[in-house]
Amino acid sequence: MMKVCRRTTFNSAHRLLNKNWSDEKNQEVFGKCNSPNYHGHNYTLETWLEGEVDPDTGYVIDLGVLKEIIKEEVEDPFDHRNLNLDVPDFYDLNPTAENIALVIFRKLKLRLPNYKMTIRLYETQNNFVEYTEDY
Amino acid sequence: MMKVCRRTTFNSAHRLLNKNWSDEKNQEVFGKCNSPNYHGHNYTLETWLEGEVDPDTGYVIDLGVLKEIIKEEVEDPFDHRNLNLDVPDFYDLNPTAENIALVIFRKLKLRLPNYKMTIRLYETQNNFVEYTEDY
Amino acid sequence: MMKVCRRTTFNSAHRLLNKNWSDEKNQEVFGKCNSPNYHGHNYTLETWLEGEVDPDTGYVIDLGVLKEIIKEEVEDPFDHRNLNLDVPDFYDLNPTAENIALVIFRKLKLRLPNYKMTIRLYETQNNFVEYTEDY
Amino acid sequence: MMKVCRRTTFNSAHRLLNKNWSDEKNQEVFGKCNSPNYHGHNYTLETWLEGEVDPDTGYVIDLGVLKEIIKEEVEDPFDHRNLNLDVPDFYDLNPTAENIALVIFRKLKLRLPNYKMTIRLYETQNNFVEYTEDY
Amino acid sequence: MMKVCRRTTFNSAHRLLNKNWSDEKNQEVFGKCNSPNYHGHNYTLETWLEGEVDPDTGYVIDLGVLKEIIKEEVEDPFDHRNLNLDVPDFYDLNPTAENIALVIFRKLKLRLPNYKMTIRLYETQNNFVEYTEDY
Amino acid sequence: MMKVCRRTTFNSAHRLLNKNWSDEKNQEVFGKCNSPNYHGHNYTLETWLEGEVDPDTGYVIDLGVLKEIIKEEVEDPFDHRNLNLDVPDFYDLNPTAENIALVIFRKLKLRLPNYKMTIRLYETQNNFVEYTEDY
Repeated sequence: MMKVCRRTTFNSAHRLLNKNWSDEKNQEVFGKCNSPNYHGHNYTLETWLEGEVDPDTGYVIDLGVLKEIIKEEVEDPFDHRNLNLDVPDFYDLNPTAENIALVIFRKLKLRLPNYKMTIRLYETQNNFVEYTEDY
Repeated sequence: MMKVCRRTTFNSAHRLLNKNWSDEKNQEVFGKCNSPNYHGHNYTLETWLEGEVDPDTGYVIDLGVLKEIIKEEVEDPFDHRNLNLDVPDFYDLNPTAENIALVIFRKLKLRLPNYKMTIRLYETQNNFVEYTEDY
Repeated sequence: MMKVCRRTTFNSAHRLLNKNWSDEKNQEVFGKCNSPNYHGHNYTLETWLEGEVDPDTGYVIDLGVLKEIIKEEVEDPFDHRNLNLDVPDFYDLNPTAENIALVIFRKLKLRLPNYKMTIRLYETQNNFVEYTEDY
Repeated sequence: MMKVCRRTTFNSAHRLLNKNWSDEKNQEVFGKCNSPNYHGHNYTLETWLEGEVDPDTGYVIDLGVLKEIIKEEVEDPFDHRNLNLDVPDFYDLNPTAENIALVIFRKLKLRLPNYKMTIRLYETQNNFVEYTEDY
Repeated sequence: MMKVCRRTTFNSAHRLLNKNWSDEKNQEVFGKCNSPNYHGHNYTLETWLEGEVDPDTGYVIDLGVLKEIIKEEVEDPFDHRNLNLDVPDFYDLNPTAENIALVIFRKLKLRLPNYKMTIRLYETQNNFVEYTEDY
Repeated sequence: MMKVCRRTTFNSAHRLLNKNWSDEKNQEVFGKCNSPNYHGHNYTLETWLEGEVDPDTGYVIDLGVLKEIIKEEVEDPFDHRNLNLDVPDFYDLNPTAENIALVIFRKLKLRLPNYKMTIRLYETQNNFVEYTEDY
């Protein structure tokens, strides 16, 4: 089992809220993360791909190719944006770290269907999540 | 010359703009940092104080006291906030890293007038600023 | 499979020894880690929980809740303490990184029985351990 | 499942190329990594071993023993060397991160046959690979 | 002005106290750092030397020489020791980060009198001090 | 005094030698750093500029401009290259960290003459240098 990883970053604003809840309930559940004018993070993304090592190249994948796909699917739409307002995936989905990781997984999986994929997303140095597809 | 430092973090949204400029000029000068719906950062703040080592305590300052002052002056008003909209210091001041460092310097200097102070602020892992008072 | 992690730290003294062995054997096996007056570490703890993402909150768990449980079960009893002398779990158990991770796992599992849990503990930047329950 | 890890580093020169390919094809596939006079990296190696915790020592393995084996098998032959020219394992094998990890795995597994082993190798802060034996 | 730095680490136990004070006053001033059975830290030391670049070697100093001096003067006596009980410099001196930095400065300056020296000492990721001789 | 910094990286091969010395003397002085087939490093470069904060932009300098200048002057000629063989500045200059920092300083100073400049260069996590112009 060989896995390779590309680490990238993006800087976004967001706030946490469930649109079906009252302001009071959102404040109670999400606290300062529900602050109405948004806050933000330097997100660090690790994209892990598992596959065979190509005997001709010695690569599982050319990380330059992976870097470009991540740029198109994640950095271009997310970086220096407001996740709630600028990214349609989060118009009706609360942009918790868990949900951001799931959205990134789905976007990248469409482009890289032949690799088993793990997405790790650091929201801060102390809070992070990891999503691995079942296999 | 003994200096001590307390490292802290805060997570905020911001956008860069000069309110006296047109949207076109702001976009030209600040690029993606001018994105209208804000983006955000995990800011890391280093607060350096220079002073004598107290022979009774072996401290320049009790870092627990410094931690509390930083909490009151910086973390409580800045963390999980929108610097442009929620922090009066930036209503008419562009929240670049340089200006955020200057605002933090002035707030903390009022509370700690007897120490020579340096403020280092990391906006990202790759971009950071440092302000030292002249002395 | 979604996992979330909270990273925390605690600073403790310890020494390694097997109380059933002679001083000579302890010194031979544990070397400088057996130093009689203790040494210490800044331990970094990663607590990973695996679970379903709650569709209402977008959380596997509120990391603020996890942070408080770690504070009660690990930081309050371990931080700024001597593991051998101040923490009953280690009165008869050698406080190696492996054993500290196991003790932390058991304490946190009692509070969080519904999550699959992984404990990673860094003793230094170069030496670390990870315990995952079988499942 | 208890795993322990020792983190080490080595600094080496390398270039990527498939000796069966033309210069043009190597340049096309490997780009700047094919630069003829070599470039180099500070590699960071994590060697993970899985095993039982010895009830007498509280260790899966004495990390001092693991450190010495890594020194003999990896650091001594790789550090401050040119992987392509100085390390026979790469005379006919392209020294990609994937292949370096595989070579290190095979060398260390011969010395530590009784542990399940994972090798993680960081080529840069942003590019890294991980090899786990099937079990 | 060329400065070079060698980063090293040592792991020690300590507690903070002023031997001329009552237990109550020590507890009041030093809080959990006064915990009677000691706690500990992974200290990170940066030793900076300023000097001319030797035109024959391109070095301010051979960092291998500096590394050996730090090993003799700091690592051998401090690492895996109790600073209060095992290191005579702290028998009558409170081992705060400031005082540890001063002690290290004096020890290294005796060995390297011809270089202007700065000592930076990290007690934790968040608390650190820096001592520079006046010049 | 406001200073701003841009952190960048480049990966290069090098070896240390004084071309006026015998092989024996080079080996004696530079040890493994003199290894004939080169080794390499992930260099991390911090470029610090000191200046006034422009009241219109809130910038000392647009870090995007600085980033582009560093790319042209340092990354393009140094990254994925052999410093001894591919970079004319080191044909007759030993590529120690000190000398690399001096060469980078001179290149960048020509492009940014109106800023006081400090160059910090990390060769490894443990060895680094800093050059500040006198002022």
